[in-house]
Amino acid sequence: MSYSAPVKEMLFVMKELADLESVAALPGFEDANLDTAQAVLDEAAKFNGEVLAPLNFEGDKNPSTWSNGVVTTTPGFKDAFRQFAEGGWQGVMHPVEYDGQGLPKLIATPCIEMLNAANLSFALCPLLTDGAIEALLTAGTDAQKQLYVPKLISGEWTGTMNLTEPQAGSDLALVRTRAEPQGDGTFKVFGTKIFITYGEHDMADNIVHLVLARTPSAPEGVKGISLFLVPKFMVNEDGSLGERNDVHCVSIEHKLGIKASPTAVLQYGDHGGAIGYLIGEENRGLEYMFIMMNAARFAVGMQGVAVADQAYQRAVAYARDRVQSRPVDGSAKQSVAIIQHPDVRRMLATMRALTEGARALAYVAAAHSDFAHRHPDEKVRANHQAIYEFLVPIVKGWSTEMSIDVASLGVQVHGGMGFIEETGAAQYYRDARILTIYEGTTAIQANDLIGRKTVRDGGATAQVLLAQVDETIAALAERDGQPFKSMHRHLSAGSLSLARAVEFVVAKVKSDPNAVFASSVPYLKLAGIVLSGWQMARALLVASEKRGEDEAFYGAKIATAQFFAEHVLTLAPGIEASIVSANGEQGILALHEDQF
Amino acid sequence: MSYSAPVKEMLFVMKELADLESVAALPGFEDANLDTAQAVLDEAAKFNGEVLAPLNFEGDKNPSTWSNGVVTTTPGFKDAFRQFAEGGWQGVMHPVEYDGQGLPKLIATPCIEMLNAANLSFALCPLLTDGAIEALLTAGTDAQKQLYVPKLISGEWTGTMNLTEPQAGSDLALVRTRAEPQGDGTFKVFGTKIFITYGEHDMADNIVHLVLARTPSAPEGVKGISLFLVPKFMVNEDGSLGERNDVHCVSIEHKLGIKASPTAVLQYGDHGGAIGYLIGEENRGLEYMFIMMNAARFAVGMQGVAVADQAYQRAVAYARDRVQSRPVDGSAKQSVAIIQHPDVRRMLATMRALTEGARALAYVAAAHSDFAHRHPDEKVRANHQAIYEFLVPIVKGWSTEMSIDVASLGVQVHGGMGFIEETGAAQYYRDARILTIYEGTTAIQANDLIGRKTVRDGGATAQVLLAQVDETIAALAERDGQPFKSMHRHLSAGSLSLARAVEFVVAKVKSDPNAVFASSVPYLKLAGIVLSGWQMARALLVASEKRGEDEAFYGAKIATAQFFAEHVLTLAPGIEASIVSANGEQGILALHEDQF
Repeated sequence: MSYSAPVKEMLFVMKELADLESVAALPGFEDANLDTAQAVLDEAAKFNGEVLAPLNFEGDKNPSTWSNGVVTTTPGFKDAFRQFAEGGWQGVMHPVEYDGQGLPKLIATPCIEMLNAANLSFALCPLLTDGAIEALLTAGTDAQKQLYVPKLISGEWTGTMNLTEPQAGSDLALVRTRAEPQGDGTFKVFGTKIFITYGEHDMADNIVHLVLARTPSAPEGVKGISLFLVPKFMVNEDGSLGERNDVHCVSIEHKLGIKASPTAVLQYGDHGGAIGYLIGEENRGLEYMFIMMNAARFAVGMQGVAVADQAYQRAVAYARDRVQSRPVDGSAKQSVAIIQHPDVRRMLATMRALTEGARALAYVAAAHSDFAHRHPDEKVRANHQAIYEFLVPIVKGWSTEMSIDVASLGVQVHGGMGFIEETGAAQYYRDARILTIYEGTTAIQANDLIGRKTVRDGGATAQVLLAQVDETIAALAERDGQPFKSMHRHLSAGSLSLARAVEFVVAKVKSDPNAVFASSVPYLKLAGIVLSGWQMARALLVASEKRGEDEAFYGAKIATAQFFAEHVLTLAPGIEASIVSANGEQGILALHEDQF
Repeated sequence: MSYSAPVKEMLFVMKELADLESVAALPGFEDANLDTAQAVLDEAAKFNGEVLAPLNFEGDKNPSTWSNGVVTTTPGFKDAFRQFAEGGWQGVMHPVEYDGQGLPKLIATPCIEMLNAANLSFALCPLLTDGAIEALLTAGTDAQKQLYVPKLISGEWTGTMNLTEPQAGSDLALVRTRAEPQGDGTFKVFGTKIFITYGEHDMADNIVHLVLARTPSAPEGVKGISLFLVPKFMVNEDGSLGERNDVHCVSIEHKLGIKASPTAVLQYGDHGGAIGYLIGEENRGLEYMFIMMNAARFAVGMQGVAVADQAYQRAVAYARDRVQSRPVDGSAKQSVAIIQHPDVRRMLATMRALTEGARALAYVAAAHSDFAHRHPDEKVRANHQAIYEFLVPIVKGWSTEMSIDVASLGVQVHGGMGFIEETGAAQYYRDARILTIYEGTTAIQANDLIGRKTVRDGGATAQVLLAQVDETIAALAERDGQPFKSMHRHLSAGSLSLARAVEFVVAKVKSDPNAVFASSVPYLKLAGIVLSGWQMARALLVASEKRGEDEAFYGAKIATAQFFAEHVLTLAPGIEASIVSANGEQGILALHEDQF
């Protein structure tokens, strides 16, 4: 099962849409120019294609197994992780002072995409480690940072996020795990955490669990949650490992997909208490966890792009190979490769357009994050931060929702063979299904998009983005030809729909919260479609300028943008209608609980 | 894992939308009144709920297994099949003269729905047997009918359809299996057939394979395919079983879903030739197979409704039970059952609305089939036949496409638990994925809808249906209140969209076939949405009249219809835009094969 990273496409997006040149001009990113990007991406493409992709199907067939508290990963994973660590891939975007490479998020993002496209189950381990690193860098003491971060970046150790408990999934107010102070600065942690990705495994020497728990004096609800670091093995001051801590994996889950990734139930404190260390201040755990989660949410959005791209690549390969039926236009008397059939082309174009649109939006978001961190002007930083935060739930929610549709189309392109596990197409359909759930369901993303990102500033950030969309629309209007005409027409309609939806959300959230939140996911999808479509429009403008330089590449980009306009953006007004003009609550909530 | 058949809803659709009373007035259906229907449905609900539903999850965990040519089905299946046969369920819609019950398709259809909702994998065996019975009744000799049909109806034997070969999936022109005449009226069959559902199993004494093959003198392509009956065990004239025939199961597939249903690779003639009997005339095999397939396609459409309904029932149960987070409107200080959250309600309402709409359209189609078979007036029969044939690809294509979305929403409602196989929600997501593929992919259905059903009569049948939709729209206009207002608005828009799409298809199919066929699946979906929405509108009109009699039931129906209008029908104009105004071929096919 092969994966060929779309490096050319990635560099196009980075350079032409996400303004890599300006990112490389930010303080500290001086080396992050196009040449560096090209070199890093080429190397990542090689590693992920050669080392990790071949293990993807293997991991599905031979998932991680549990026995007596010990988890054994798929054969080959441990060695691959060693190579991943030695290649420095964990540290791409982490600070140089902790042995990271200190590259911009804009360069790290395609690396993350490749990693996840090659092997989603494998990629989850580094993804969670990234989150742990972010949390420690944000809230840890200097000593904690020095002790843990370099080991996490080197891949000697890995990290986890422990939020969920049986009664506390999306609702962290219900967390019951408790942490009792021991008087020596340490705590003893007691409780059960479930759904802990790579909560136990055999790929690294130690596992650093970041755990939400309550201290005895904590207030109820989310304001009484603190963040603790609980290592699997105790860590001596010199970084060497001590005794086994009292955290044990009592089982792993039997899942629909991402089977190679062990999903652990962790039991804390059954033998006297797991020793933990407070991270940051007491009762501010949720705040720190959100830092990890925001990084993780963006990364999960990239998982959506990644699995969609891999499903697309496989479907294209099959469609070129499989010969079946004559062309409908009578242009051949013999059966032809199915890629020649219009409906197969429509499916492949849909997969391609959705993937390219979501990728472009995510990379643009990554660049905003870089500006938000590194621009010398505080006001500029704040503006970029607001846009980045607005985009994170869209990148997470939209990329993952579309990835399920794309993976499903991938199965469909394969026909009956798609339903046979040996073909491999079904794995993406199963793997993708978790992406809209973990790190916050699409509804959680959508509520975030409405509450914190749209309503809190009265729609101001949304208006900033819409004004930028309008500039693109104006540029489209000045160009001739069907691709521009189609894009102008459908992006204009989509932009108006999104503007009206923003207006509706801001105006009604207080007076009719149920109506607004009942439309939260459609609102997120509308934003995803319009803002991805906007990126495709920007790509169209660039590609038409450069077409002469590389007809194959830019011609395909133009055709894909037109397809996006005519087959994806066309959905926007209908979604708006279901949000705005549908009378909201009455329509969705008229059906009482007991009528279902 | 329980299943509670929605008998009340089924009877409502049969009586109020599919006009059971008129069906019961047809010659031969005199006993098929509402009382009979109620009695049959109650009995079916009991059998399927008590006997088959409990085996559904079991079949997923412990699929059929193959060893040395012998297939052993999931423990419990054999006994359940005996009970199914003894209950007379195989014969519900088959002729009384062959020991069937001779009931209308309109009454058989909810029975089929229940069977599939309770246990999709189990139901496939009777579904294929139904197809074999239909083919024999249509094309078999009297002797063949007498010898085989009663045994198939009694459940002593089961039937299969053997179309697919490794190189011949959707493209039956590529069939290579050959049948050599032996001079005694029999043939010897040689070849490999794949994807044969229940091609081998242990639930019945004999298996009657209906096999597409070529005789030595046959022309190339689909005009040279004949239909043969090849029994697993030879059948003596008195119906007793003779020697084992030379057809053997060499393996079964490892599939994404419907795991309990063995999908066989059958090898014909490796030991001298499998003895087969020609059914009907030589070289007319495809025609007969289409009879089986049309029956099977309708039944697969019902599988879509069935799995959607079961996914819905499970999601509702979970949403009532799972407590998580406070209401967004601040109406409670404690976490509440998630069914109270607007987005969960939206998901459940979407699942419900799509399922009810597809069910109603399918039952209405079933009634058309009954009129087409039994009405005394030939012209009336022909009119109903045309409508039925128009609706079959829509019932098959739309019900199954929506079932994937509904099953996916079912997983989403469960959150993280939905991804854990033990919960059961994931099984529907996996099972449903085959429905848009087998018995003709959605593209095959859509091409049929365009070619044979829309273009061949110049859009006449489509116009008949659109005129009926317009009558409903006129009735809606005379009523007050938001549900009518919403439905009037969105059904009007949807109907116009469908009308324009029909016009486009008829006008352009000759001059620009690629453009038309590139939009075939969107065209089918548009038809599915508008015609299902039309049934919901008719249900709305009836429910508002009867609301006083049963507020809970009719109130829910009204709210569901309004939801359908505001959240499903709203999608229609956008789909039309992608079909009609998108410049067809240029948009979809501008991307060349080598640009993917």
